[in-house]
This record gives sequence, C-alpha cells and structure tokens, in this order.
Amino acid sequence: MTLLLPAGALAQDGPTVDVVKGELDTTWLMLATCLVFFMQAGFALLEIGMSRGKNVGMGVAKILINFSIGSLIWWAVGYGFAFDTSHEIIGSAGFFLGNSTELGGEAVGAAGVGFWAFQLMFATVSLAIVWGTTLERIKFGAYLIFAVVFIGLIYPLVAHAAWSGVGILSRVGSGVQDFAGSSVVHLTGATAAFAAVLFLGPRKGKFGPDGKPRAIPGHSMPLLGLGVLILWLGWFGFNGGSTFNTTDNKFAEVIAVTNMGAIGGVLGATLLIWLLSRKLDVGMMGNGAIAGLVAITAPSGYVEMWAAPIIGFIGGFIVVAGVLAIDKKIDDPVGALSAHGLAGIWGTLACGLFTSDRLAEQVGVGKAGLFYGGGLEQLGVQAVAVLVTFFGVFILSGITFAIIKATIGLRVSEEEEDSGLDIAEHGMYGYPEQFIPAPELIGVGSPRPTGAGSAPIGSASEVPA
Amino acid sequence: MTLLLPAGALAQDGPTVDVVKGELDTTWLMLATCLVFFMQAGFALLEIGMSRGKNVGMGVAKILINFSIGSLIWWAVGYGFAFDTSHEIIGSAGFFLGNSTELGGEAVGAAGVGFWAFQLMFATVSLAIVWGTTLERIKFGAYLIFAVVFIGLIYPLVAHAAWSGVGILSRVGSGVQDFAGSSVVHLTGATAAFAAVLFLGPRKGKFGPDGKPRAIPGHSMPLLGLGVLILWLGWFGFNGGSTFNTTDNKFAEVIAVTNMGAIGGVLGATLLIWLLSRKLDVGMMGNGAIAGLVAITAPSGYVEMWAAPIIGFIGGFIVVAGVLAIDKKIDDPVGALSAHGLAGIWGTLACGLFTSDRLAEQVGVGKAGLFYGGGLEQLGVQAVAVLVTFFGVFILSGITFAIIKATIGLRVSEEEEDSGLDIAEHGMYGYPEQFIPAPELIGVGSPRPTGAGSAPIGSASEVPA
Amino acid sequence: MTLLLPAGALAQDGPTVDVVKGELDTTWLMLATCLVFFMQAGFALLEIGMSRGKNVGMGVAKILINFSIGSLIWWAVGYGFAFDTSHEIIGSAGFFLGNSTELGGEAVGAAGVGFWAFQLMFATVSLAIVWGTTLERIKFGAYLIFAVVFIGLIYPLVAHAAWSGVGILSRVGSGVQDFAGSSVVHLTGATAAFAAVLFLGPRKGKFGPDGKPRAIPGHSMPLLGLGVLILWLGWFGFNGGSTFNTTDNKFAEVIAVTNMGAIGGVLGATLLIWLLSRKLDVGMMGNGAIAGLVAITAPSGYVEMWAAPIIGFIGGFIVVAGVLAIDKKIDDPVGALSAHGLAGIWGTLACGLFTSDRLAEQVGVGKAGLFYGGGLEQLGVQAVAVLVTFFGVFILSGITFAIIKATIGLRVSEEEEDSGLDIAEHGMYGYPEQFIPAPELIGVGSPRPTGAGSAPIGSASEVPA
Repeated sequence: MTLLLPAGALAQDGPTVDVVKGELDTTWLMLATCLVFFMQAGFALLEIGMSRGKNVGMGVAKILINFSIGSLIWWAVGYGFAFDTSHEIIGSAGFFLGNSTELGGEAVGAAGVGFWAFQLMFATVSLAIVWGTTLERIKFGAYLIFAVVFIGLIYPLVAHAAWSGVGILSRVGSGVQDFAGSSVVHLTGATAAFAAVLFLGPRKGKFGPDGKPRAIPGHSMPLLGLGVLILWLGWFGFNGGSTFNTTDNKFAEVIAVTNMGAIGGVLGATLLIWLLSRKLDVGMMGNGAIAGLVAITAPSGYVEMWAAPIIGFIGGFIVVAGVLAIDKKIDDPVGALSAHGLAGIWGTLACGLFTSDRLAEQVGVGKAGLFYGGGLEQLGVQAVAVLVTFFGVFILSGITFAIIKATIGLRVSEEEEDSGLDIAEHGMYGYPEQFIPAPELIGVGSPRPTGAGSAPIGSASEVPA
Repeated sequence: MTLLLPAGALAQDGPTVDVVKGELDTTWLMLATCLVFFMQAGFALLEIGMSRGKNVGMGVAKILINFSIGSLIWWAVGYGFAFDTSHEIIGSAGFFLGNSTELGGEAVGAAGVGFWAFQLMFATVSLAIVWGTTLERIKFGAYLIFAVVFIGLIYPLVAHAAWSGVGILSRVGSGVQDFAGSSVVHLTGATAAFAAVLFLGPRKGKFGPDGKPRAIPGHSMPLLGLGVLILWLGWFGFNGGSTFNTTDNKFAEVIAVTNMGAIGGVLGATLLIWLLSRKLDVGMMGNGAIAGLVAITAPSGYVEMWAAPIIGFIGGFIVVAGVLAIDKKIDDPVGALSAHGLAGIWGTLACGLFTSDRLAEQVGVGKAGLFYGGGLEQLGVQAVAVLVTFFGVFILSGITFAIIKATIGLRVSEEEEDSGLDIAEHGMYGYPEQFIPAPELIGVGSPRPTGAGSAPIGSASEVPA
Repeated sequence: MTLLLPAGALAQDGPTVDVVKGELDTTWLMLATCLVFFMQAGFALLEIGMSRGKNVGMGVAKILINFSIGSLIWWAVGYGFAFDTSHEIIGSAGFFLGNSTELGGEAVGAAGVGFWAFQLMFATVSLAIVWGTTLERIKFGAYLIFAVVFIGLIYPLVAHAAWSGVGILSRVGSGVQDFAGSSVVHLTGATAAFAAVLFLGPRKGKFGPDGKPRAIPGHSMPLLGLGVLILWLGWFGFNGGSTFNTTDNKFAEVIAVTNMGAIGGVLGATLLIWLLSRKLDVGMMGNGAIAGLVAITAPSGYVEMWAAPIIGFIGGFIVVAGVLAIDKKIDDPVGALSAHGLAGIWGTLACGLFTSDRLAEQVGVGKAGLFYGGGLEQLGVQAVAVLVTFFGVFILSGITFAIIKATIGLRVSEEEEDSGLDIAEHGMYGYPEQFIPAPELIGVGSPRPTGAGSAPIGSASEVPA
C-alpha cells in the first residue's frame, strides 16, 4: 500500500518537492548575491577610471575597507534594525543574526542567511554610491566613520520604512512601489553623497577664478567601461534577485526588463550629449547605462516590457542634463548625484505612471499607475517616498558629516590633494612606474621600463609592498 | 481520501515537480544569459587591449551603443524574424515579444522571456564579433547603421535557417549540427567583418611602401588577457546554456567539453607560434583560446570528451596560420577573421568528423560523423551550412557596407585617424593624462601626476566629463 | 487507477523529484565551477598588478598555458590519482574520465563530469598559487614542466590523502577537517612556491649591497584591486561549491561565513599595517582579503558565523607580519608565502579551535574544536595535516625544481631580467606604447599617442600581433 502515500512520503531517502523548491530559490538568491557583490568591483573601477592617476590606489583601499566595515556592522546591528518587524520605525532584534522575531526564533536558518547575505550586498551597494562624488579630496578616516553610521543606522531606517512590511512607507496609500531600490538604495546613497559634498567642497582647480567649471578628465576610459559593464551584469542579480525566489519565473521577466531599461539609458544619454556637443562622450554614455539601470530598479517588478526602454531613455536624458547642470556649482567627479540621485527619483516616480494592474496585483504592493487608469494616487505615494527618503537621509547624513568635519576633519590638506591621495594616505603611488624613476632597480643599457618618471623617490620605498 | 490524489494536488500550497523543474531550467538559462552578457566586456577588453592608446575610449562607447541598439532591434523585430516558425525563410510574428505563433498566443510567458533574453545575448555577441577587424579607422556612424541591419535582418535570417526548426538548413540531410553557433554566431560575425574590411581598407601605416605588413602592437596585454578570460568564462554559459535546460545534466558535459576545446586551442596556438618564431606571442596565445572556444562551439553538444582537445588544438593551429597569412594582405587588428571565421568553419565541419552516435541521437539533429562510421554525409551537410552562411552573410553585409560607404562614409579622415578616434569622435582621450598636460590642474611643487604629456590641450576641456 | 501511482510515475513526461534535485545540485556545482574558473583571472591580475610594467604580458601567457596544461593533465591522470579509491596512497583508475571504480563503471555520467570539472578548477587554483612568488625572473619553460608534475602527481597525492575518503589523512583521529582546502589547495601551492624560490633566488636589485630588502612596487594598484575582488567573488564558489550540492541550503551558510572571513582579513591587515606604518598600504589590504579568505577556507563548513570574522582577522594580522618578516630574506613579490602559506596553516589549525559540534556532525568529519569542548584532539589532527602536507609537497616540489634547475635552468639571464620577460620571452612589450616610439606609425602633426617612449625599437615588429 505504499503506493497510496503521497510523493514526499514515498521518497524516503529523497527530498520533497517543497524542500527542493526551497533549495532552488536559495540557489538563485545566492547567485544573485554573488552578482550584486561583484558590483563592488564595478563601482571601484568606475570611480578609479574617473579619477586622476594619482588617486587610484585609494579606490582599491576604499572599496575594501568600506565593504568590510559595512559587512561587520550589517551583521552586528544593521540587518536587525532594517528587517526585524517588532517596531514601526526600526527593528529591535536580529542582531548578529540571532533572535529576530520575524525570522522565527533563536537564529535564522540557512535560507535566512541567504536573505541576510543578499540584503548585505544591497546595503553595501548603497554605501558604495556615496563616495564617487567625494573622490580625490576626502580623508580616508571619513570613510570609516560614515560607513558605521550609514550601515548601522541610516540605510536600515530607510530599508525598514520601505521594505520590512511594517514601516511607515508601507502605510502610505497601498504601499510604496520600489521593487529593488531606486529610492531605498540609489537615492539614499546619492543623498548622502549630496550631504557630503556640501561640507567637502570641490576639488582644487575644478572652478576657475571666474567661477566656471573646468573638466578634470578621469584617467582611464577602459577601466570606466569595464566598471559600467560589471555593474550592468551585477544589476541582473540586483533586480532579478529582488524576487527572492524563482516562482513563476518572474525573475526572468525582471532581468529582461532591467536590460531594456539599461539600453534605454544608453540611447537617451548618447542622443542628448550628441545633440548638445556633437561628441559621443564616453563618460556620459557610461552614466547613461547607470542611469537607465537606476531608473528601472524601482519599476523592474511592476512594469511591462514596453515601458522599460522608455523609462530608461528618460533616465538617460536626465543624467546628461543633470550632470551638465550640477557641474556648474558642485564638483561630482563621477556624476553620481545625477546617475543615482536624479535617476533614482525618476525611477521611483515612474512606478506611479507605468505600473500595470497585473504586476501591482502580482507583487501585492500599491496600485496601477496613471497610464493604467490608476489615476494620480500611486504617483503621489511615490512622491512621498522620494521626499521622506531624501529629507531623512539628508538630515542624518548632514549631521554625521558635520560632526566628522568638526572633529577629525573631512578634507585632506592642499599638499596632500596636490600630491595625490595614493602617496599621501597609502604610502605608494597606484602606478608607481609613472611617478618613481627608481634608477637603482633598472638595469643599465636595457630599455627603460617606465614612461617618463621624473618625480623624486616617494615614501613608497619605506613600506614593503 | 486525499492521499490518493497525485503529489501536485496534495501539496496545495507548494508547486508541482514539473513547475519546479521549469523554474530550475529557467534559473540555469538566465544565469547562462548573464554569463553570455558578460562576454560583451570580454570583447571590449580584447579589442581595447589590441588597439593603440589613442583609440580606447571608442571601444567603450562602441560596445555600449552596439549592445543597446542590438537589444532594441532584437526586441522589435529580430527575435520574431529569427524564431517565429510561420515561414521557412523568415518569421512573421513575435515582434515586440507578442503574437508569436510558435510561442503560443498573445505573448510569451516568463519562461519564454528567458529564451528571448538568452537569444538576445547570442545575437549581440555575433554583432560584437564584426568590429574587431575594423578597429582604429571606422566611423562611429557605421556601427549604428550596421547594428540595425545586422540584428534586424542578417543574423535573424541565419538563425532562422539553422535554429528555428523550420529553416532551410534544418532540411539539408538530417539537419545541420551547430550546437551553439560556430557557424550561426561566429562565422556570421566574422563574415560581416570580412565584408567590412574590404570596403574599409587597412590602417594607415599597416603596409609599408614595399607592401609588406608591419606590426601595430596593441597597447595593453593585461587588458587583452582579462578579455580572453572573461570570454572563456562567458562561453560556459554560451555553450552550456544552449541546452536551454538542465535535463540529464547534459549542460555539465557541454561545459567540460567546452573547457577542453579551449585548452586545446591554447596549446595548439602556443606550439605553432613557438615553432615559427621562438617567441610565446601573447596575442597569439589569447587568440588560440578564442579559436579553441569557437571551434568547439558547434560540436560541444555532439562530441565526446576525447574529441574536444583535438578539435581545439587544430583550431589553435588554424588561428596562428590564418593570422599570419591574412596579415599579409588584410589589416585585421584582433585576428577575428581567423579566430571567429576560420575556426568557426573548422568547428562546423568538425561535427561531420567527430559527432558520436550517442549524442546525435540525444540531440536529435543530424547523424554520426565520419569517425563514428557515419560516412561523409554529415560532413557534406556541414559544408553546405558553411557555404550558405558565408555567402548569404557576405552578400547582405557587403551591400550594407557599400551603401554606408556611398552615403555617410565608412572611414574617418586621415587627420582623425592620426589623432585617434577618442579625441576625434568622443571629445576626450581614453587616457587623458598621457596626452594632456593640463598644467593648471596640477599643484606646483608636487610630483607630476602624469607620465609625460606633451600634447596640446585637446577639446576634452570643452566637454564636461 | 493511475491516480494511485506515485508522483514520479504519474508525471510520465516529467521528471521525478529526485531527478530534479540531482539537476539542481549539478546546476549549483557547475555555477560554482564557473566562479572558481574566474579566479584564474583574479590571480593573473593580482600578479600582473604586483609586477613591473616590463613583465605583464608574461602574466597573461603564463595563466593561459598553466591552466591549459593543468586541464590536460588533470583529465589524463590527475583526477584518477586524486579521487579513485582503489588504493590508500593514490588512485589507479579514472584516467581520461573512464573506469573509475568509485564512480561506478565504464565512465562517469554527466553529474560526475560536474564533480570532475569542479575539482579541475581546484587543482589549477593550487597551481596558480605557486607562481606569484617566482615572478619577474623565472624561465617560462619551468611553468610547463612543473605544471605537469604538480597536476599529475603532487596535488593529486595531497587531495587523495585528505579528500578521497580512503587517504591517510582521513584516518588521523576522526579525520582532517579541511572543508575547501586551506591546506589541500592553498598551503600546497604556497609550499611549492617556497621550494621554487629557494632554488630561484631574489630578483636583481631586491636586496641592496647591505643585504637589506628594497621595495619593488607593483606597477598597477587598480589591476591588483580588481584581481582581489574577482578572487573574492570566485571564493564564494570555491567554498560554497565544496558542499557539492544545495542540501539544506548549507552552501548559503558557507558563503556567508566565507564573506565574514574575508572582511575579517581586510580589517586585521589594515589595522596592523596602519599601526606599524601609519599608511594604508593597498597591497597589504588586498593581501588581507586573500589571507582572510584562505584562512576561512578550511573552517567554512565547520564553524559558526561568529568565528568567521575572528579567524579572518587573525589571518589578516598574520599576512602583514608574515610579509614583513619574510621580505627580509626572501623575495616574494605578491606575498603568496604569507597569504596562502601562513594563512593556510592558520586556517587549517583554526578548525581545531573553532569547529562546532553541530557542524562537525553535519559534515561527518572530525570532532568539535577546543572552544566547543572537544579538547586538543582535533587541533592535533589538524597539525598533522599541516605537517604532512608541508613536508610532502616541499620534498616533491624541491626535487622537481632541482631537476629543472640542473637541466633547462630555472632562471632567465641577467640581461633578460633587465629588459623584462615580455620582450625577452614573448617578443613584445605588454604595454608597447610605453616602450616603443614606432615613429613611422604616428601621424605627423598629431598629438603623440604614447607617453614618452624612448627605447629602441624592439623585436615586437618582427612578430605579427
């Protein structure tokens, strides 16, 4: 009579369907986690490419220490603050992965660790976004302190409000639609960057005596390009993984939609910069891709395919116009305020226009947007999310940077800025051969292994590599 | 009596086995899609590494715009032309992902989107292959126009003929064996490149007054090497994903076979260039890997493991001999005509030799090859596929490039070629510090942050970065 | 009555749960295989970044040929020696993937190929670790010969002893705990490197006339940083894939633990180098990440989350102290002896301290460590593993390098070392524009496309690229 038992009971040595389904979901979630982790390399290369050659080792050191501090703080308190559901404003359990009420008891299980790891990558992406605007003049110590505050408090507050299920943004209307974080991750990071740059000021030489901005080109377009492509790849995990599972293959739709948003961004930015300058500026095209990706991030689970290239295209337009406008007054070396901030706002609002009935219902958050007969209600909800996120993050980040400035200081000395952060803070040039002749290391009579080093020997020789 | 119901009905809250199996297949297909997408970065780096430093920003701009236009056109018409099965020569439905007869009704479902996205990455890889041969002298506008024609018509015609199930190459013998596209993707791209270079001519300085070729070394072997390794990684998704599912773990076999083809290519190319020159030329070794991968692409689902390193090894020999021979008359900076063209032909023909009974039957296309007692029949079928693909693509691409040349022009001016495409078309050097001294940006008395810039200030300062 | 049949029989066209579970496990294993393969790019970039610009093409050529020879030899004999279980010391079947007694019959099936491919990537990672220490002066031929011996004999002996289930290290106590290879992979590679450097000696100019070490900075911190991040990413597959399946989502826990080990390494190394030098040395921070990852590799399946950052942190301390100490006498350009050797020893021993009851039982190897009440027993077992691995590998590698030195020679000539390996062994500079003016290729009156080449034209022009 064993034939009468259900399948799960029959397969005594094997797993049940539900168990396999759970493992499949975790498999996708962990691979998405890997893809989002790789975005750290994308941010590093994008920032390094946009920096001058004297400030490139810093980009490596910064990404390593930021991600490391972020991971530690997320483990300690950030995740609990963000995703424990005991309170409306902030969680109060789940610290060090234990005792979260939501996660059921003593500690999260292995699948819970997957969710935790995926969210860790999100938090550290948001943190990575903060720094592009501050390149080439911020003190290394500022990274350390702000990383603690941002991952330990600011980002968790935003994530709790929008994504915990009990937060304040879940209660506005039928809930804020931000599938993967145009607002929660990108606008948050860019807003903190905006607060930072107000206290930090522009790089030396950015604005001439006449107050007009001057271009300070990044030193390597190939590294910039590689960074953009790595970010694009990682975004498939970022948006696609925000389904948290493989149910109904929705994640495949999200990935396709994400890609169409990205290409819209490239096309929009390319068209506008071409119309304005008759040149195909590489940085603008790369930022177009980023802006398209940022813009489609909130809508990626809520909109049909047709809307994606349009949302991205407008994002591409916005980033070019934004960079040109902001550059007049604010020194943002990578254009992050536009690519993550303005495009993040646009993407969040775009849900209020493009969200379809079908997908609002499928996700179970919010309503259809204006173009699907939902009227202005969801658009209003989205606007509230933008305002709450912006002002909340701006105030908290501003206070933090003000305190940093008043205590250890926010900016390197003028001499350090001139000589570059690599030699000043890291003891070695990022491209030593371009700066150090090191004649004693070079064989006489052989081709010179360096371009044209003419600088005095730096302190690098004092620190073994 | 619920126990008597089948498992799917019992697990009322959970999915059935078939549903989970479908989601698993989509998971693999989407991760393969991500891997193949990453090949865009591989192509960009390989081409940038093989270019001179004055033409590297172009490589970034080109890959972004090509992939973006390609995605848009694939969505609009390319996919429908390629995979709708209404007609023998070309599809007539499935445009904008809707109404494909094959795909069943109004629109493809989420799993269908996965297949669509995977095929999008294939089409754009084929397009990326076109441009390596044209580096350092082609007009940017040519990319835009040819991308539309190639993704909108040329590639879909080839894919329809070989892969739609109703195309003309499915009816030759028992069907053409091209598991992942040695012919469909690689020979197609290389043939278009061949048509392009005939209209384009060599780079200035490539051939001396005596008509003999001169080496124009690429500027960065590290970027070339990274590009090759990224391509190799992506190829595991390219070939392995061409199973479209995880059934019987065949994709694992395909990945292992692919790897053995690649290493065969490295070994073959390394041996031959060493015998010829007593130097281990880095570019040749990298092209050996590419050629091995291209050669194993068609056979990867049809041959046993033992055949893979042999097929790859011969591919490696072919690429070295091909580059040396072609270089005498044609300027192909990256060796794509050999690595994708000749090796693609070899790989397609190799099925006619090495396909095993077991795997021909498993895939259900064609017959065993010569070495498995199948005689010359399959080899003949494969030869037909090569000829049809080559002449079809050559004629259509030739016409397109002829029209481009006659209208907007195909080649930049001599001055632009001299100064480099970066400054000419993109308004900024790819490595600005090697070209622009920008003294006003450098602190007095500090180490010079640039190598030895001695060029006049370019137009980069007119375009905010 | 079909309703009475079990689910697998009912779904006549569909697979059973067990089959889907097997395919899911293979999916994860193959994606982990892809991630571990990508570590080859990480090693290449890390080594290239740490080399001078005259020795960077070599890094590309070396990684390609090493991986290729390694794959071939692994297929031929390495895998059979390592994982066939016929004998205690070494396998005697499974060559060319056939006839392995353990793997059941004529040939391994498709899932077996997945395991084979995953282990191939491990063997070639171990081989890649050998060479960082030997950079910038070893003969290319040494790579070829040692790759054959290492993949064909040395690594299989170690893997057989620890991982085949019948080897000698499985019988020490209740078995050695080395989840993913702190000892098997990393210490083995580093020990071979140690043997190599004893026969090879330091780079010219490393030690001054006074015998004191001088810094020879690597030429590119951005490439180093990208290499570290790629390795970090790959390590999620390296440790997470060592579960070989997705059962109970353990692989998710392993990935999370791995990440916490890595960040511990960054934090430990950063703190110590800051305390010692007041500079945030980029190379040290990168090596901190590597050391944290190496240290957590053995414990990653055996320790709870809390232990991971501690194990990593100590690994970070060890790598900085180790590099500074070793640098006084031995020239190890990338610090591999410390990052893979000392941290590998520490990671292996750490199991004897931190392994928890729960996880020792779950994995089924060894006992709880000292901090979980297991006493010193497991620590002793781990120490035995370290000693056996070190002395076994050191003797066999030492003999091999001695023979290489006595026959074809181990070291390039002084002139070749001066001019750089790229031009000496590969016929072309890795960055040709920094070395070759090639005036005939440069348009008159246009900006010079090179930094400041002043070297005579090299032999690069004799070898078509």
